[in-house]
Amino acid sequence: MTEIKDKSIQEFLDELASKQATPGGGSAAAVLGAQSAALISMVCNLTIGKEKYAGVEEDMKSLLKQSELLREELTAMIKADVDVFDKLMASYGLPKNSDEEKQLRSVQIQTVLKEATLIPLECAKACAKTIELSRIAAEKGNTGVISDAGVAVMSGFSGLKSAALNVYINAGSIKDKKFADAALADLKKLMDGADAQTEEVYQIVKAKL
Amino acid sequence: MTEIKDKSIQEFLDELASKQATPGGGSAAAVLGAQSAALISMVCNLTIGKEKYAGVEEDMKSLLKQSELLREELTAMIKADVDVFDKLMASYGLPKNSDEEKQLRSVQIQTVLKEATLIPLECAKACAKTIELSRIAAEKGNTGVISDAGVAVMSGFSGLKSAALNVYINAGSIKDKKFADAALADLKKLMDGADAQTEEVYQIVKAKL
Repeated sequence: MTEIKDKSIQEFLDELASKQATPGGGSAAAVLGAQSAALISMVCNLTIGKEKYAGVEEDMKSLLKQSELLREELTAMIKADVDVFDKLMASYGLPKNSDEEKQLRSVQIQTVLKEATLIPLECAKACAKTIELSRIAAEKGNTGVISDAGVAVMSGFSGLKSAALNVYINAGSIKDKKFADAALADLKKLMDGADAQTEEVYQIVKAKL
Repeated sequence: MTEIKDKSIQEFLDELASKQATPGGGSAAAVLGAQSAALISMVCNLTIGKEKYAGVEEDMKSLLKQSELLREELTAMIKADVDVFDKLMASYGLPKNSDEEKQLRSVQIQTVLKEATLIPLECAKACAKTIELSRIAAEKGNTGVISDAGVAVMSGFSGLKSAALNVYINAGSIKDKKFADAALADLKKLMDGADAQTEEVYQIVKAKL
Protein backbone atom coordinates (compact mmCIF):
# COMPACT_ATOMS: atom_id res chain seq x y z
CA MET A 1 0.00 0.00 0.00
CA THR A 2 1.23 3.50 -0.79
CA GLU A 3 2.33 5.36 2.32
CA ILE A 4 0.28 8.53 2.90
CA LYS A 5 3.22 10.88 2.39
CA ASP A 6 3.65 9.42 -1.10
CA LYS A 7 0.04 10.04 -2.05
CA SER A 8 -0.93 13.24 -3.81
CA ILE A 9 -2.40 16.10 -1.81
CA GLN A 10 -5.67 15.60 -3.69
CA GLU A 11 -5.75 11.91 -2.83
CA PHE A 12 -4.89 12.61 0.83
CA LEU A 13 -7.71 15.18 1.05
CA ASP A 14 -10.15 12.78 -0.65
CA GLU A 15 -9.30 10.00 1.81
CA LEU A 16 -9.47 12.40 4.75
CA ALA A 17 -12.94 13.52 3.66
CA SER A 18 -14.21 9.99 3.06
CA LYS A 19 -15.94 7.65 5.48
CA GLN A 20 -12.74 5.63 5.91
CA ALA A 21 -11.59 5.91 9.52
CA THR A 22 -8.01 6.65 8.46
CA PRO A 23 -6.31 8.93 7.68
CA GLY A 24 -7.98 11.18 10.23
CA GLY A 25 -7.21 14.02 12.57
CA GLY A 26 -4.02 12.44 13.92
CA SER A 27 -2.39 12.29 10.50
CA ALA A 28 -3.72 15.75 9.72
CA ALA A 29 -2.02 17.05 12.87
CA ALA A 30 1.30 15.58 11.72
CA VAL A 31 0.83 17.20 8.28
CA LEU A 32 0.26 20.55 9.99
CA GLY A 33 3.48 20.14 11.94
CA ALA A 34 5.48 18.97 8.92
CA GLN A 35 4.20 21.92 6.88
CA SER A 36 5.32 24.26 9.66
CA ALA A 37 8.81 22.75 9.70
CA ALA A 38 9.01 22.95 5.90
CA LEU A 39 8.14 26.66 5.95
CA ILE A 40 10.81 27.35 8.58
CA SER A 41 13.30 25.57 6.31
CA MET A 42 12.10 27.71 3.40
CA VAL A 43 12.83 30.91 5.33
CA CYS A 44 16.31 29.53 6.19
CA ASN A 45 17.03 28.47 2.62
CA LEU A 46 16.06 31.92 1.34
CA THR A 47 18.21 33.67 3.96
CA ILE A 48 21.39 31.58 3.87
CA GLY A 49 23.94 32.85 1.35
CA LYS A 50 22.48 36.36 1.08
CA GLU A 51 25.06 39.05 1.78
CA LYS A 52 22.53 41.20 3.63
CA TYR A 53 21.99 38.35 6.10
CA ALA A 54 25.61 37.27 6.53
CA GLY A 55 25.38 38.22 10.21
CA VAL A 56 22.76 35.52 10.90
CA GLU A 57 24.17 32.93 8.49
CA GLU A 58 25.29 30.53 11.22
CA ASP A 59 22.02 30.92 13.16
CA MET A 60 20.07 30.14 10.01
CA LYS A 61 22.19 27.09 9.22
CA SER A 62 21.64 25.75 12.72
CA LEU A 63 17.91 26.53 12.51
CA LEU A 64 17.68 24.72 9.17
CA LYS A 65 19.27 21.58 10.64
CA GLN A 66 16.71 21.58 13.44
CA SER A 67 13.72 22.30 11.21
CA GLU A 68 14.71 19.57 8.73
CA LEU A 69 15.05 17.01 11.54
CA LEU A 70 11.64 18.03 12.85
CA ARG A 71 10.15 17.82 9.36
CA GLU A 72 11.45 14.27 8.98
CA GLU A 73 10.08 13.31 12.39
CA LEU A 74 6.67 14.88 11.74
CA THR A 75 6.41 13.38 8.25
CA ALA A 76 6.99 9.93 9.76
CA MET A 77 4.18 10.61 12.24
CA ILE A 78 1.62 10.88 9.41
CA LYS A 79 1.97 7.12 9.04
CA ALA A 80 2.58 6.33 12.71
CA ASP A 81 -0.86 7.68 13.58
CA VAL A 82 -2.59 5.41 11.08
CA ASP A 83 -0.54 2.39 12.19
CA VAL A 84 -1.37 2.78 15.86
CA PHE A 85 -5.04 3.42 15.06
CA ASP A 86 -5.16 0.15 13.10
CA LYS A 87 -3.42 -1.63 15.96
CA LEU A 88 -5.93 -0.23 18.43
CA MET A 89 -8.87 -1.31 16.29
CA ALA A 90 -7.31 -4.78 15.95
CA SER A 91 -6.98 -5.09 19.72
CA TYR A 92 -10.60 -4.03 20.26
CA GLY A 93 -11.49 -6.73 17.75
CA LEU A 94 -9.80 -9.53 19.73
CA PRO A 95 -12.11 -12.39 20.83
CA LYS A 96 -13.76 -12.15 24.23
CA ASN A 97 -15.49 -15.51 24.58
CA SER A 98 -13.78 -16.67 27.76
CA ASP A 99 -12.47 -14.88 30.85
CA GLU A 100 -8.95 -15.62 29.66
CA GLU A 101 -9.64 -14.09 26.23
CA LYS A 102 -11.27 -11.09 27.87
CA GLN A 103 -8.23 -10.55 30.05
CA LEU A 104 -5.78 -10.93 27.16
CA ARG A 105 -7.83 -8.52 25.09
CA SER A 106 -7.94 -5.97 27.88
CA VAL A 107 -4.17 -6.16 28.45
CA GLN A 108 -3.55 -5.75 24.72
CA ILE A 109 -5.91 -2.76 24.47
CA GLN A 110 -4.24 -1.09 27.44
CA THR A 111 -0.77 -1.64 25.96
CA VAL A 112 -1.76 -0.16 22.60
CA LEU A 113 -3.61 2.74 24.26
CA LYS A 114 -0.34 3.79 25.86
CA GLU A 115 1.33 3.78 22.46
CA ALA A 116 -1.65 5.65 20.99
CA THR A 117 -1.16 8.30 23.68
CA LEU A 118 2.59 8.64 23.27
CA ILE A 119 2.49 9.07 19.48
CA PRO A 120 0.28 12.19 19.48
CA LEU A 121 2.20 13.43 22.54
CA GLU A 122 5.41 13.22 20.48
CA CYS A 123 3.61 14.99 17.65
CA ALA A 124 2.50 17.72 20.08
CA LYS A 125 6.10 18.07 21.31
CA ALA A 126 7.44 18.40 17.78
CA CYS A 127 4.74 20.96 16.91
CA ALA A 128 5.53 22.97 20.05
CA LYS A 129 9.15 22.98 18.90
CA THR A 130 8.09 24.42 15.52
CA ILE A 131 6.53 27.36 17.38
CA GLU A 132 9.91 28.04 19.04
CA LEU A 133 11.80 27.68 15.76
CA SER A 134 9.30 29.90 13.92
CA ARG A 135 10.21 32.68 16.33
CA ILE A 136 13.88 32.48 15.30
CA ALA A 137 12.86 32.48 11.63
CA ALA A 138 10.60 35.49 12.27
CA GLU A 139 13.28 37.39 14.18
CA LYS A 140 16.28 36.68 11.99
CA GLY A 141 15.04 35.50 8.59
CA ASN A 142 15.00 37.32 5.26
CA THR A 143 12.22 39.89 5.61
CA GLY A 144 11.30 39.30 1.95
CA VAL A 145 9.85 35.90 2.91
CA ILE A 146 9.02 36.61 6.53
CA SER A 147 5.31 35.91 6.04
CA ASP A 148 6.28 32.24 5.63
CA ALA A 149 7.48 32.30 9.25
CA GLY A 150 4.00 33.53 10.17
CA VAL A 151 2.33 30.70 8.26
CA ALA A 152 4.81 28.31 9.91
CA VAL A 153 3.86 29.36 13.43
CA MET A 154 0.11 29.12 12.71
CA SER A 155 0.52 25.70 11.10
CA GLY A 156 2.59 24.43 14.05
CA PHE A 157 0.18 25.83 16.63
CA SER A 158 -2.80 24.16 14.98
CA GLY A 159 -0.79 20.92 14.81
CA LEU A 160 -0.12 21.12 18.56
CA LYS A 161 -3.77 21.72 19.46
CA SER A 162 -4.85 18.99 17.05
CA ALA A 163 -2.43 16.38 18.35
CA ALA A 164 -3.51 17.25 21.90
CA LEU A 165 -7.05 16.03 21.16
CA ASN A 166 -5.75 12.53 20.46
CA VAL A 167 -3.72 12.55 23.67
CA TYR A 168 -6.86 13.50 25.63
CA ILE A 169 -8.95 10.77 23.97
CA ASN A 170 -6.50 7.92 24.47
CA ALA A 171 -5.19 8.93 27.89
CA GLY A 172 -8.81 9.02 29.03
CA SER A 173 -9.18 5.27 28.41
CA ILE A 174 -5.93 4.23 30.12
CA LYS A 175 -6.40 2.42 33.44
CA ASP A 176 -2.81 3.06 34.57
CA LYS A 177 -3.61 6.48 36.04
CA LYS A 178 0.01 7.26 36.82
CA PHE A 179 0.92 6.84 33.14
CA ALA A 180 -2.10 8.80 31.91
CA ASP A 181 -1.54 11.64 34.37
CA ALA A 182 2.13 11.91 33.40
CA ALA A 183 1.18 12.14 29.72
CA LEU A 184 -1.45 14.78 30.43
CA ALA A 185 0.99 16.74 32.59
CA ASP A 186 3.57 16.65 29.78
CA LEU A 187 0.93 17.87 27.36
CA LYS A 188 -0.18 20.65 29.68
CA LYS A 189 3.40 21.97 29.79
CA LEU A 190 3.42 22.11 25.97
CA MET A 191 0.02 23.80 25.77
CA ASP A 192 0.50 26.39 28.52
CA GLY A 193 1.25 29.70 26.88
CA ALA A 194 1.42 28.24 23.35
CA ASP A 195 -1.37 30.52 22.15
CA ALA A 196 0.37 33.62 23.53
CA GLN A 197 3.74 32.55 22.06
CA THR A 198 2.10 31.93 18.69
CA GLU A 199 0.44 35.32 18.69
CA GLU A 200 3.77 36.96 19.62
CA VAL A 201 5.53 35.36 16.65
CA TYR A 202 2.61 36.30 14.39
CA GLN A 203 2.88 39.91 15.51
CA ILE A 204 6.67 39.95 14.99
CA VAL A 205 5.98 38.84 11.40
CA LYS A 206 3.12 41.29 10.86
CA ALA A 207 5.26 44.20 12.04
CA LYS A 208 7.86 43.35 9.37
CA LEU A 209 5.50 43.09 6.38
CA MET B 1 4.08 20.77 -15.16
CA THR B 2 2.32 18.78 -12.47
CA GLU B 3 -0.19 20.86 -10.53
CA ILE B 4 0.67 21.06 -6.83
CA LYS B 5 -2.45 19.20 -5.69
CA ASP B 6 -1.32 16.25 -7.83
CA LYS B 7 2.12 16.12 -6.24
CA SER B 8 2.75 13.87 -3.28
CA ILE B 9 2.71 15.31 0.21
CA GLN B 10 6.42 14.55 0.48
CA GLU B 11 7.17 16.37 -2.77
CA PHE B 12 5.02 19.35 -1.72
CA LEU B 13 6.85 19.58 1.61
CA ASP B 14 10.24 19.28 -0.12
CA GLU B 15 9.37 22.10 -2.53
CA LEU B 16 7.95 24.20 0.29
CA ALA B 17 11.17 23.78 2.28
CA SER B 18 13.43 24.52 -0.71
CA LYS B 19 14.80 27.85 -1.87
CA GLN B 20 12.27 27.98 -4.71
CA ALA B 21 9.97 30.95 -4.18
CA THR B 22 6.86 28.85 -4.84
CA PRO B 23 5.00 27.07 -3.43
CA GLY B 24 5.12 29.25 -0.33
CA GLY B 25 2.91 30.45 2.48
CA GLY B 26 -0.02 31.31 0.23
CA SER B 27 -0.34 27.77 -1.08
CA ALA B 28 0.24 26.43 2.43
CA ALA B 29 -2.68 28.57 3.66
CA ALA B 30 -4.94 27.05 1.00
CA VAL B 31 -3.80 23.54 2.01
CA LEU B 32 -4.70 24.36 5.63
CA GLY B 33 -8.18 25.45 4.56
CA ALA B 34 -8.70 22.47 2.27
CA GLN B 35 -7.64 20.10 5.05
CA SER B 36 -10.14 21.75 7.37
CA ALA B 37 -12.95 21.31 4.84
CA ALA B 38 -11.95 17.67 4.26
CA LEU B 39 -12.12 16.93 7.99
CA ILE B 40 -15.59 18.50 8.25
CA SER B 41 -16.66 16.24 5.37
CA MET B 42 -15.16 13.27 7.22
CA VAL B 43 -17.28 13.99 10.30
CA CYS B 44 -20.37 14.28 8.04
CA ASN B 45 -19.58 11.07 6.17
CA LEU B 46 -19.16 9.19 9.45
CA THR B 47 -22.44 10.59 10.86
CA ILE B 48 -24.77 10.26 7.85
CA GLY B 49 -26.60 6.94 7.74
CA LYS B 50 -26.05 6.10 11.42
CA GLU B 51 -29.32 5.35 13.21
CA LYS B 52 -28.18 7.13 16.37
CA TYR B 53 -27.76 10.34 14.35
CA ALA B 54 -30.94 10.11 12.23
CA GLY B 55 -32.16 13.32 13.87
CA VAL B 56 -29.33 15.37 12.36
CA GLU B 57 -29.14 13.47 9.04
CA GLU B 58 -30.44 16.37 6.95
CA ASP B 59 -28.20 18.90 8.73
CA MET B 60 -25.19 16.69 8.08
CA LYS B 61 -26.08 16.26 4.42
CA SER B 62 -26.39 20.01 4.00
CA LEU B 63 -23.12 20.55 5.89
CA LEU B 64 -21.36 18.00 3.66
CA LYS B 65 -22.48 19.83 0.52
CA GLN B 66 -21.06 23.08 1.86
CA SER B 67 -17.80 21.56 3.09
CA GLU B 68 -17.19 19.77 -0.21
CA LEU B 69 -17.76 22.98 -2.18
CA LEU B 70 -15.34 24.79 0.11
CA ARG B 71 -12.81 21.99 -0.25
CA GLU B 72 -12.95 22.27 -4.03
CA GLU B 73 -12.57 26.05 -3.85
CA LEU B 74 -9.66 25.89 -1.40
CA THR B 75 -7.89 23.13 -3.34
CA ALA B 76 -8.02 25.33 -6.46
CA MET B 77 -6.46 28.15 -4.45
CA ILE B 78 -3.28 26.12 -3.87
CA LYS B 79 -2.50 26.71 -7.56
CA ALA B 80 -4.05 30.18 -7.82
CA ASP B 81 -1.56 31.49 -5.28
CA VAL B 82 1.41 30.24 -7.30
CA ASP B 83 -0.05 31.56 -10.57
CA VAL B 84 -0.58 35.08 -9.27
CA PHE B 85 2.86 35.10 -7.63
CA ASP B 86 4.43 34.20 -10.97
CA LYS B 87 2.37 36.91 -12.67
CA LEU B 88 3.50 39.46 -10.11
CA MET B 89 7.16 38.51 -10.55
CA ALA B 90 6.72 38.76 -14.35
CA SER B 91 5.27 42.26 -14.05
CA TYR B 92 8.11 43.38 -11.78
CA GLY B 93 10.44 42.04 -14.47
CA LEU B 94 8.96 44.20 -17.25
CA PRO B 95 11.43 46.61 -18.95
CA LYS B 96 11.75 50.12 -17.57
CA ASN B 97 14.08 51.79 -20.08
CA SER B 98 11.77 54.64 -21.13
CA ASP B 99 9.12 56.67 -19.32
CA GLU B 100 6.47 54.88 -21.35
CA GLU B 101 7.84 51.46 -20.36
CA LYS B 102 8.04 52.56 -16.75
CA GLN B 103 4.43 53.66 -16.81
CA LEU B 104 3.24 50.46 -18.48
CA ARG B 105 5.17 48.41 -15.96
CA SER B 106 3.70 50.31 -13.04
CA VAL B 107 0.13 49.93 -14.35
CA GLN B 108 0.68 46.22 -14.85
CA ILE B 109 2.15 45.75 -11.35
CA GLN B 110 -0.77 47.61 -9.79
CA THR B 111 -3.29 45.50 -11.70
CA VAL B 112 -1.68 42.23 -10.62
CA LEU B 113 -1.27 43.46 -7.03
CA LYS B 114 -5.05 43.81 -6.82
CA GLU B 115 -5.45 40.24 -8.00
CA ALA B 116 -2.74 39.13 -5.58
CA THR B 117 -4.74 40.76 -2.77
CA LEU B 118 -8.11 39.33 -3.75
CA ILE B 119 -6.89 35.72 -4.01
CA PRO B 120 -5.67 35.44 -0.40
CA LEU B 121 -8.74 37.45 0.68
CA GLU B 122 -10.94 34.78 -0.93
CA CYS B 123 -8.83 32.14 0.78
CA ALA B 124 -9.31 33.91 4.12
CA LYS B 125 -13.09 34.04 3.50
CA ALA B 126 -13.24 30.34 2.72
CA CYS B 127 -11.14 29.52 5.81
CA ALA B 128 -13.41 31.68 8.01
CA LYS B 129 -16.32 29.68 6.62
CA THR B 130 -14.63 26.42 7.68
CA ILE B 131 -14.57 27.75 11.27
CA GLU B 132 -18.37 28.23 11.10
CA LEU B 133 -18.92 24.81 9.56
CA SER B 134 -16.60 23.14 12.08
CA ARG B 135 -18.94 24.38 14.81
CA ILE B 136 -21.90 22.55 13.24
CA ALA B 137 -19.76 19.39 12.90
CA ALA B 138 -18.68 19.74 16.55
CA GLU B 139 -22.22 20.30 17.78
CA LYS B 140 -24.07 17.71 15.74
CA GLY B 141 -21.54 15.20 14.42
CA ASN B 142 -20.86 11.62 15.51
CA THR B 143 -19.12 11.95 18.88
CA GLY B 144 -16.94 8.96 17.96
CA VAL B 145 -15.05 11.14 15.46
CA ILE B 146 -15.66 14.51 17.04
CA SER B 147 -11.95 15.21 17.51
CA ASP B 148 -11.75 15.59 13.72
CA ALA B 149 -14.04 18.63 14.05
CA GLY B 150 -11.48 20.02 16.50
CA VAL B 151 -8.62 19.45 14.06
CA ALA B 152 -10.81 21.01 11.33
CA VAL B 153 -11.35 24.22 13.27
CA MET B 154 -7.65 24.57 14.12
CA SER B 155 -6.62 23.92 10.53
CA GLY B 156 -9.15 26.47 9.22
CA PHE B 157 -8.15 29.10 11.77
CA SER B 158 -4.48 28.79 10.89
CA GLY B 159 -5.43 29.00 7.19
CA LEU B 160 -7.31 32.25 7.86
CA LYS B 161 -4.44 33.85 9.77
CA SER B 162 -1.95 32.63 7.14
CA ALA B 163 -3.92 33.94 4.16
CA ALA B 164 -4.32 37.27 5.98
CA LEU B 165 -0.55 37.81 5.87
CA ASN B 166 -0.60 37.78 2.06
CA VAL B 167 -3.49 40.23 2.01
CA TYR B 168 -1.52 42.60 4.27
CA ILE B 169 1.61 42.34 2.11
CA ASN B 170 -0.04 42.96 -1.23
CA ALA B 171 -2.63 45.52 -0.10
CA GLY B 172 0.29 47.49 1.37
CA SER B 173 1.78 48.04 -2.10
CA ILE B 174 -1.46 49.08 -3.82
CA LYS B 175 -1.64 52.77 -4.74
CA ASP B 176 -5.45 52.73 -5.11
CA LYS B 177 -6.07 53.34 -1.41
CA LYS B 178 -9.83 52.93 -1.72
CA PHE B 179 -9.35 49.41 -3.08
CA ALA B 180 -6.70 48.51 -0.51
CA ASP B 181 -8.73 49.86 2.41
CA ALA B 182 -11.83 47.96 1.28
CA ALA B 183 -9.84 44.71 1.13
CA LEU B 184 -8.33 45.33 4.57
CA ALA B 185 -11.77 46.18 5.99
CA ASP B 186 -13.18 42.93 4.56
CA LEU B 187 -10.30 41.02 6.11
CA LYS B 188 -10.77 42.71 9.47
CA LYS B 189 -14.38 41.53 9.55
CA LEU B 190 -13.20 37.95 8.97
CA MET B 191 -10.47 38.17 11.61
CA ASP B 192 -12.47 39.88 14.37
CA GLY B 193 -13.47 37.27 16.89
CA ALA B 194 -12.10 34.36 14.83
CA ASP B 195 -9.75 33.33 17.65
CA ALA B 196 -12.58 33.30 20.21
CA GLN B 197 -14.88 31.37 17.84
CA THR B 198 -12.14 28.84 17.18
CA GLU B 199 -11.49 28.34 20.88
CA GLU B 200 -15.24 27.90 21.47
CA VAL B 201 -15.47 25.14 18.87
CA TYR B 202 -12.31 23.53 20.28
CA GLN B 203 -13.85 23.52 23.76
CA ILE B 204 -17.14 22.04 22.46
CA VAL B 205 -15.05 19.20 21.01
CA LYS B 206 -12.89 18.77 24.11
CA ALA B 207 -15.97 18.53 26.34
CA LYS B 208 -17.27 15.63 24.22
CA LEU B 209 -14.08 13.52 24.18
